[in-house]
Amino acid sequence: MEKLKILLSLIFLLFLTQTIFAQKKSVDLIVSGGTIVTMDAEKRLFENGAAAIQNGEIVAVGKALDISRQFAARQIINASGKVVIPGLVNTHTHIPMTLFRGISDDLDLQEWLTKYIFPAEAKNVTEDFVRVGTRLGLAEMIRGGTTTFCDMYYFEDAIADETAKAGMRGVLGETIIDFPAPDNKTHEQALAYTEKFVNKWKNHALIVPAFAPHAAYTVSEAHLGNIKKSADRLNAAVVIHVAETQTEVGDILKQKNLRPIEYLDKINFLNNRTIAAHVVFANENEIDILKNRGVGVAHNPQSNMKLASGVAPVPQMLLKDLPIGLGTDGAASNNDLNLWEEMDTAAKLHKVFARDPKILTAEQAFEMATIRGARALHLENLVGSIETGKRADIAIVDFDALHQTPFFNVYSHLVYATKASDVRTVMIDGKVVMRDRRLLTLNENVIKKDANAYQKKIIESLLR
Amino acid sequence: MEKLKILLSLIFLLFLTQTIFAQKKSVDLIVSGGTIVTMDAEKRLFENGAAAIQNGEIVAVGKALDISRQFAARQIINASGKVVIPGLVNTHTHIPMTLFRGISDDLDLQEWLTKYIFPAEAKNVTEDFVRVGTRLGLAEMIRGGTTTFCDMYYFEDAIADETAKAGMRGVLGETIIDFPAPDNKTHEQALAYTEKFVNKWKNHALIVPAFAPHAAYTVSEAHLGNIKKSADRLNAAVVIHVAETQTEVGDILKQKNLRPIEYLDKINFLNNRTIAAHVVFANENEIDILKNRGVGVAHNPQSNMKLASGVAPVPQMLLKDLPIGLGTDGAASNNDLNLWEEMDTAAKLHKVFARDPKILTAEQAFEMATIRGARALHLENLVGSIETGKRADIAIVDFDALHQTPFFNVYSHLVYATKASDVRTVMIDGKVVMRDRRLLTLNENVIKKDANAYQKKIIESLLR
Repeated sequence: MEKLKILLSLIFLLFLTQTIFAQKKSVDLIVSGGTIVTMDAEKRLFENGAAAIQNGEIVAVGKALDISRQFAARQIINASGKVVIPGLVNTHTHIPMTLFRGISDDLDLQEWLTKYIFPAEAKNVTEDFVRVGTRLGLAEMIRGGTTTFCDMYYFEDAIADETAKAGMRGVLGETIIDFPAPDNKTHEQALAYTEKFVNKWKNHALIVPAFAPHAAYTVSEAHLGNIKKSADRLNAAVVIHVAETQTEVGDILKQKNLRPIEYLDKINFLNNRTIAAHVVFANENEIDILKNRGVGVAHNPQSNMKLASGVAPVPQMLLKDLPIGLGTDGAASNNDLNLWEEMDTAAKLHKVFARDPKILTAEQAFEMATIRGARALHLENLVGSIETGKRADIAIVDFDALHQTPFFNVYSHLVYATKASDVRTVMIDGKVVMRDRRLLTLNENVIKKDANAYQKKIIESLLR
Repeated sequence: MEKLKILLSLIFLLFLTQTIFAQKKSVDLIVSGGTIVTMDAEKRLFENGAAAIQNGEIVAVGKALDISRQFAARQIINASGKVVIPGLVNTHTHIPMTLFRGISDDLDLQEWLTKYIFPAEAKNVTEDFVRVGTRLGLAEMIRGGTTTFCDMYYFEDAIADETAKAGMRGVLGETIIDFPAPDNKTHEQALAYTEKFVNKWKNHALIVPAFAPHAAYTVSEAHLGNIKKSADRLNAAVVIHVAETQTEVGDILKQKNLRPIEYLDKINFLNNRTIAAHVVFANENEIDILKNRGVGVAHNPQSNMKLASGVAPVPQMLLKDLPIGLGTDGAASNNDLNLWEEMDTAAKLHKVFARDPKILTAEQAFEMATIRGARALHLENLVGSIETGKRADIAIVDFDALHQTPFFNVYSHLVYATKASDVRTVMIDGKVVMRDRRLLTLNENVIKKDANAYQKKIIESLLR
């Protein structure tokens, strides 16, 4: 009788345990306890929220209590008191140029390019330079919570290799330009290199290989046509500088009797795989063209200010719901890879330029740095928000630093008060790449040492 | 014989010791080993430099080797690998409003003031609020290397008390406005308070007490006259908002048939003790008036952008060598007290606004944050540069963070790459107030706790 009671009790206990635990799905990781800023379509915020992650994918987002009822995780990251945001999306940079940070400033664009940037590139840019500069830029971006970046440079295959090794996500465009470049000397070589590059990386989980014709004024119509054909055939993204300066607009007008965007559209260059960097000069018609073709736009407020290019018609583009993100441009012209400052600057610049403090809100600026930036890179199905089905690109950010005290509104706080140094932990594709401000996939000291060795070389090269 | 030899040896040794050490002057402190950015008239830089400090005064600046030959110090601060700069000068803020950081944003100025700022002030500003907010702002400023600030608020006597206790330097102006204020309800009360306040603090080593009539549109001509008379009699500084918005210009034009600066000059209000905040709207004639009267100007680029006020004619003022510094304005409208971002923004904003990348250089921006800012506050004989005879207000700044790598030019690096978080050690009047990022005169945790208690009160007060 006693034995039967014990047996029945055990069976009951087993049943109870199963009802409690059986429905708990096992996942790799739960980020739990902070305020989750989802940036989903409803802009949901979950205070004391959580996100469950399995195989690098976000499988659930909600209140921490609900998530903990449904999921059991092998690893839990405690985000209490912090904000959990989608990893930031840097829609335009030239990452190896981080090695040229501050090489020269406060010059006319032409003088800056011809006296410093072009000679420095001609004399220094090798595959090794590119690798060192890429690691330096990756480290800076990850430390600032950036998880995806869009690049345009030379030796892009090496950039892809370094990016993949660091566990970073990138839309990486090999530059094609009608001058001999550090890696490829002719258009044909560059095109062949890029096709090979795209084929090599197109199925990689983190890398989106792309064609990057430099601009309409540096690549001939015929060559743009070749690039378009190749990119279409390979279904690849195309990154290009568009209407950055008044000079560019004047030159294309003179040559083609059309403004840059009109011209690019006329030659059928623009589509929903195009990423147009800068777009400082675009009239209503050109904005409509970009919208209708599904072109993504990379707005680089600090670079456009520092090079005195102009103020892009961002509020007009937002009114028409264009996919427009924020970019840092290269560190040679900014001089950092800090998207927090770009958000802050974007919101403030457009306010003063339009003389309207409501024209670009903190929420809109943060959106441009996340989900709208993802749309600009045509990656909105993959990243840019914390929602079920997306890849787990997430940053956990301190919200109680002295310069963040007190706190009233989450978007205002993110855009106007938070700094890159407040980012604590970063994961990309479900893998933690920075934990409590310590980089896990890159060695900061080695990176600095390598970069400083190049600094000496660069200075000597400019004296030659 | 043997004894004589020993005696002679001892005498010789004594002589030798004296010749070596006798000329070494004993000082309190030597900062040694970094690159000293003096911001003196010749803009001298000393690589591997040093500064000797005695009784809070800089008694020598030069190469570290020369300084070590001349001086022996009780304390040596090793600045190797860092830059040593004059403490930054924040020429305009409302320090207790740090408690309103992000209370509301992205609104029209009138809506922002009448719906949020004025009610929040009416319901919350007490002497205790002011003390808590001051400590919060002081801590943020010191952490960012600011050593002097110019303030305008209520209960300024309490602000002076907190500022002196924290060891910070301030030009502190009690606000006088033609409305009942949290501390004084009438003009007469405010004037009496301020006179008493000025008399109390005028001989303090760190505090410059000042009159702060709010603006020409909020203080009547008669009242401005009273303030001027009192300030003249007490030889006190006068802080005032001038020509911040187009509305203000329009109002004064309508009332006085003169533009704000013309009006203030006509009533003989301006002199070389005046500090004019903002000056967004000033024509050539008005700039000449400011120059001729010796008025100091506080330029607040980020606040002017965020509130969509406009872009001040800073390049024109610099051409005429006006004493113009940088200010953060209050954290309610910025939303921080970070002069590094103001430098960066000033340089970039004026470039894009003038479409000229040379119009305001990094060196000029850094000058505005240091020696020219000191001139704006009429304190150029005291602070703003590292040179013999000045008070030792000095910040030691890391120059090898990842986002600062590599390094090419010191001013470019300071303005375009360095962040507030790179400031390591700060001294004011020869006293170290932050060492290796640890505040020595303020308790960060208590400050945050107190500020967060007010955050709750402020939210509740706005719901009432």
